[in-house]
Amino acid sequence: MSLNNIIDLRSDTVTVPTPAMREAMASAEVGDDVFGEDPTVNRLQEMAAERLGFEAGLFVASGTQGNLIAVMTHCQPGDEAIVGDQTHFYLGEQGGMASIAGVNPRPLPNQPDGTMRLEDIQAAIRGDDAHYPITRLIAIENTHNKIGGVAVTAEYTLALAEFAHARGLKLHVDGARVFNAAAALDVPVSALTGPADSATFCLSKALSAPVGSVLCGSRDFIKAAHRRRKVLGGGMRQAGILAAAGIVALEEMPQRLKDDHANARLLADGIARIPGLTPVGNVPTNMVYFDIDPGLPFDGHELCRRLETMRIKALLTGARRIRAVLHCWISREDVLETLRALDTAVKDGDKMTSSGAKVGSY
Amino acid sequence: MSLNNIIDLRSDTVTVPTPAMREAMASAEVGDDVFGEDPTVNRLQEMAAERLGFEAGLFVASGTQGNLIAVMTHCQPGDEAIVGDQTHFYLGEQGGMASIAGVNPRPLPNQPDGTMRLEDIQAAIRGDDAHYPITRLIAIENTHNKIGGVAVTAEYTLALAEFAHARGLKLHVDGARVFNAAAALDVPVSALTGPADSATFCLSKALSAPVGSVLCGSRDFIKAAHRRRKVLGGGMRQAGILAAAGIVALEEMPQRLKDDHANARLLADGIARIPGLTPVGNVPTNMVYFDIDPGLPFDGHELCRRLETMRIKALLTGARRIRAVLHCWISREDVLETLRALDTAVKDGDKMTSSGAKVGSY
Amino acid sequence: MSLNNIIDLRSDTVTVPTPAMREAMASAEVGDDVFGEDPTVNRLQEMAAERLGFEAGLFVASGTQGNLIAVMTHCQPGDEAIVGDQTHFYLGEQGGMASIAGVNPRPLPNQPDGTMRLEDIQAAIRGDDAHYPITRLIAIENTHNKIGGVAVTAEYTLALAEFAHARGLKLHVDGARVFNAAAALDVPVSALTGPADSATFCLSKALSAPVGSVLCGSRDFIKAAHRRRKVLGGGMRQAGILAAAGIVALEEMPQRLKDDHANARLLADGIARIPGLTPVGNVPTNMVYFDIDPGLPFDGHELCRRLETMRIKALLTGARRIRAVLHCWISREDVLETLRALDTAVKDGDKMTSSGAKVGSY
Amino acid sequence: MSLNNIIDLRSDTVTVPTPAMREAMASAEVGDDVFGEDPTVNRLQEMAAERLGFEAGLFVASGTQGNLIAVMTHCQPGDEAIVGDQTHFYLGEQGGMASIAGVNPRPLPNQPDGTMRLEDIQAAIRGDDAHYPITRLIAIENTHNKIGGVAVTAEYTLALAEFAHARGLKLHVDGARVFNAAAALDVPVSALTGPADSATFCLSKALSAPVGSVLCGSRDFIKAAHRRRKVLGGGMRQAGILAAAGIVALEEMPQRLKDDHANARLLADGIARIPGLTPVGNVPTNMVYFDIDPGLPFDGHELCRRLETMRIKALLTGARRIRAVLHCWISREDVLETLRALDTAVKDGDKMTSSGAKVGSY
Repeated sequence: MSLNNIIDLRSDTVTVPTPAMREAMASAEVGDDVFGEDPTVNRLQEMAAERLGFEAGLFVASGTQGNLIAVMTHCQPGDEAIVGDQTHFYLGEQGGMASIAGVNPRPLPNQPDGTMRLEDIQAAIRGDDAHYPITRLIAIENTHNKIGGVAVTAEYTLALAEFAHARGLKLHVDGARVFNAAAALDVPVSALTGPADSATFCLSKALSAPVGSVLCGSRDFIKAAHRRRKVLGGGMRQAGILAAAGIVALEEMPQRLKDDHANARLLADGIARIPGLTPVGNVPTNMVYFDIDPGLPFDGHELCRRLETMRIKALLTGARRIRAVLHCWISREDVLETLRALDTAVKDGDKMTSSGAKVGSY
Repeated sequence: MSLNNIIDLRSDTVTVPTPAMREAMASAEVGDDVFGEDPTVNRLQEMAAERLGFEAGLFVASGTQGNLIAVMTHCQPGDEAIVGDQTHFYLGEQGGMASIAGVNPRPLPNQPDGTMRLEDIQAAIRGDDAHYPITRLIAIENTHNKIGGVAVTAEYTLALAEFAHARGLKLHVDGARVFNAAAALDVPVSALTGPADSATFCLSKALSAPVGSVLCGSRDFIKAAHRRRKVLGGGMRQAGILAAAGIVALEEMPQRLKDDHANARLLADGIARIPGLTPVGNVPTNMVYFDIDPGLPFDGHELCRRLETMRIKALLTGARRIRAVLHCWISREDVLETLRALDTAVKDGDKMTSSGAKVGSY
Repeated sequence: MSLNNIIDLRSDTVTVPTPAMREAMASAEVGDDVFGEDPTVNRLQEMAAERLGFEAGLFVASGTQGNLIAVMTHCQPGDEAIVGDQTHFYLGEQGGMASIAGVNPRPLPNQPDGTMRLEDIQAAIRGDDAHYPITRLIAIENTHNKIGGVAVTAEYTLALAEFAHARGLKLHVDGARVFNAAAALDVPVSALTGPADSATFCLSKALSAPVGSVLCGSRDFIKAAHRRRKVLGGGMRQAGILAAAGIVALEEMPQRLKDDHANARLLADGIARIPGLTPVGNVPTNMVYFDIDPGLPFDGHELCRRLETMRIKALLTGARRIRAVLHCWISREDVLETLRALDTAVKDGDKMTSSGAKVGSY
Repeated sequence: MSLNNIIDLRSDTVTVPTPAMREAMASAEVGDDVFGEDPTVNRLQEMAAERLGFEAGLFVASGTQGNLIAVMTHCQPGDEAIVGDQTHFYLGEQGGMASIAGVNPRPLPNQPDGTMRLEDIQAAIRGDDAHYPITRLIAIENTHNKIGGVAVTAEYTLALAEFAHARGLKLHVDGARVFNAAAALDVPVSALTGPADSATFCLSKALSAPVGSVLCGSRDFIKAAHRRRKVLGGGMRQAGILAAAGIVALEEMPQRLKDDHANARLLADGIARIPGLTPVGNVPTNMVYFDIDPGLPFDGHELCRRLETMRIKALLTGARRIRAVLHCWISREDVLETLRALDTAVKDGDKMTSSGAKVGSY
């Protein structure tokens, strides 16, 4: 069931639509969503809002667009948003928070569990002084990609929401992979998003739909967000084609995410047994980061190249760090094949040489 | 062949995908376009660039997004763009040129043929003085929606491009409906776009694809544009689903646009024969604007409502002005039915009353 | 009383401080205005607010800064401001409304009396549709520089304010030379500014102070404006030095503006008697624009150069159009000398040749 | 020689002009600087550029404005600037880097010597990937206010400049108090600024002029910066009034800064002898930060209030941290009086109570 006979572990974004999604797209009832008349888009938005615990949803082209619209809607230029210093929102969305929304990012240290300490946040909230921007928004990421796919708990989310609201601040959850978090924590996804003022999640990552995310919030928030989507050129016409796949993704995919998590653990455990390779962290969801010991004669770039000759792709995220992401197009057998390939590559390591690492993107 | 048994003349944006497009989408080969690996997107981009006479193309979610990216790429804050005062770019894209790109719009009078006078442009070009923004870009729209769908000629486009380049300025063509212009003028579409530095066209209007536009330009321009698409959240993953429909649109739809133009003329001629209704202009492409004489006892809002009871939709664009757009889902028979409905409505006009008009969008 | 023995008619911005102003600056009591502790700044702000009919004032570095802060305070990105198409705000402030405030300018035709027609404004107000920015602000200029220094009446200002408020819009008056307007119309300046939601006026033009303008509005507006001044770097420390001159300007200069207006009429009448020169309009305040007949063998650039050899400076504002501005450093005798110089220059015109005109700024 | 009989230690920004400055302002030769014709401004700009080791200078209203113009000139939206996480530029200028310049701030840890580690900077430089902004600028602050006024060395500055240039990056020095750094390090100020691509310094802090900073750089940089100053409304007319004081400040004040530093040490040494008060760091220049031991029954807010009853002002910068800044209006005798007052206050401490601290600005 792999993709073009390649075991593509670089990201769950590489997932292509399932046959059920293709069928749903081929027969989708569509309309002009700029007129608000696409019934399939409307249905997806309602479903998504309901799942995440909000009044309303807005279909957007990407998680980046959903996050950008959220910050544009909650804030205006001269405001500041508190974000984790390892978040995709701060590090991996080209700084659109600043360049498009005019909002000052205030990165605070992400802890190993993906959270920011409440005392750090408290200390970062600005006083009423024209020297300072106005603290307006806090944003978290769940699961937290750069911290190994860790799932931020429902308890923290609720506590942070209460903390924020007590100070007149808004909370946004970048839940690109929040369904993975819910699966890992065995909670309804709404427990991880509902306490916030807005949340996004991606249909195109672990849920395997081809394109799109949904931004959720109150009815008023989504009405205001709709204007921002328009100015970004994010209004699409017969988007119901994409939404049809999104509905299948929402209905069929969340329940199978535990398989990916099990495969991730299988992969990590196998890697731990290969001398010179070390998994990072405890692999809580569908991501395995692993390091190449300095003693080995090759670096991550070289190992990725070697794997590719064996039709396996993984993502370089540091000079000697590699990421592998599990998803619905990677079977248990693919994992075992990957472990065999890694084993072979390491054993043949003296035939490889280190080379200038080009560190990949997300 | 109408849509849900409705004759929907509000816009060609309401067009849903054809059966061939649905089939193409269902079987499209796709990949992760953020990694540049979606073969169908790549193929569409190449085809589009070749048709429009450019080196490279970029698939975007909408014409608005394509125009915004163009202005962000050609200009930076502190620059000024000369635009027609009736263009969609200036009037109908929420002012994103200013709010997102930080570029000052300098609207100049659109002439009845959709052009701006070169002497007006010359007079508007700013001198080198810190009081002024720096004139950087000229943009035109072809066909020109608000001027009745008029097609701007190849001769003017070429002359304007030479005029711009001689002054160190860039030219962008918002060719949302440039295939209609090419059909009406009987020229290759590249004659209407190639002389410019960039151009967009929409797959989702007369060409009937569900979603998307393509922004075209030089290879360097498109590389820079790609960054802007990313920050707007316009990067989509398996966008090949949409691109597959776009390829069908490009291959099969341009040659049938003359049918829409013939239907538009048929509709306009019929309207001209209904007492109290007057077509505006000479109906050069697929749009018919018509006015309701002040002597009639009802306004445009009321007439639209009446038509809707007869399963016909048209767009109010002024208190007593209505727009009807022809497209592939409107047959010659639908036009004749529309004319009968209009005739009936006007004859029964004394049963209608004027009401506060809510003027529709594009 | 001329400046360095030069009759400098280019602008009233060239005015240097009077001896009384210099004395006031030398002995000004000052403090740190960023702490709000400069007593002289505070006094100027209160005086200015009182004169203009507002609750509060804010000392700013320039009229451009005052206007920019006003639009940043009334609006946010995605909003639109209706402005006269001949205003300094739209044409002569580098498009900061777009590039800094992210606000879309909507220029409407300025009438010969400096106004915009209410019906044009009504037609330009946007409906509630995500295609459009949100109309938020109307701005006028008084006196209107590019329309010959015409004074916009109190009646129009009041009517426009009522019109704006009835539609939920704000009105800003760019009153760079509003004291000239008040003098010309023989009304208190507050009649020209008080009906609006905010207004700026310049201390450094006809009022002859070295630096600064005051932005006035409600107490809440000025509090919000203060934040915007800070982010622009407009907060100054011991600004009381400048404010001291501003207080003298406010107290002593308005009553003498009629002398400048009389001198302007004297100059215009004299120019009208020189064959080949024609004053533009009826010279309502302190500005004289005049044209060089096409029959004369020289252009404006050449005439300005010739005048400069006679120690007279004027401003080129078109290929054959020149502006002369009267102010406190131009005496009646200076005007007579200017007329003699113009007469001589025109008579010797056949010794001059036309040359490529470089059109000056404001 | 204190100010209104108050010993104002809150900041060196409270310094009022010296008699020599007042005289210079009263007799300054001025012109319209928007026309580039103010001889005193031009002279100050040349002097400043020469002192800092650059080709050209630009007089600006404040350090905040100078820094903002620098980032707007070096960068465009979509770029990123690496800044110290304790800098005024990042923390104390309202986030204008993001909200006005559209540039993403990338704060890195400031070390106790005011520097950022080169390895931290290296790790933060972005790869070529559309997910990331483009790293364009590095900025440092010298002296570094929040780190106790530490002076960043010439060696580090030079090394950082070479590091930056080797990577195609620009370096900006926020030298608000760079003359203090030069005095403390006993080097020419140009050694601390000249290696960079641009630098600002303030005339209105320790140098005691009433208003203004100068931004310095190459001739091309300053030409581009001039446009940005204009759009911010920072163009001032007869700014020579202020520049005249600035020239006196540049000529007379740097050589006396060592007196302030000696007074700072005197104050710190005295504070160290008061039980319960502890100076922070080694007091390298004109700033003394000191902490109130938790054992004392009052907090910083209360101590400041108590001092104020004795006509001494200091600045609260943390719940139990106070800042005192030495400057030309604080004599050795004032320092001794301050120490006596602190001693008294602490001894009477049991009469005071802690209260909700409102932490002051810079």
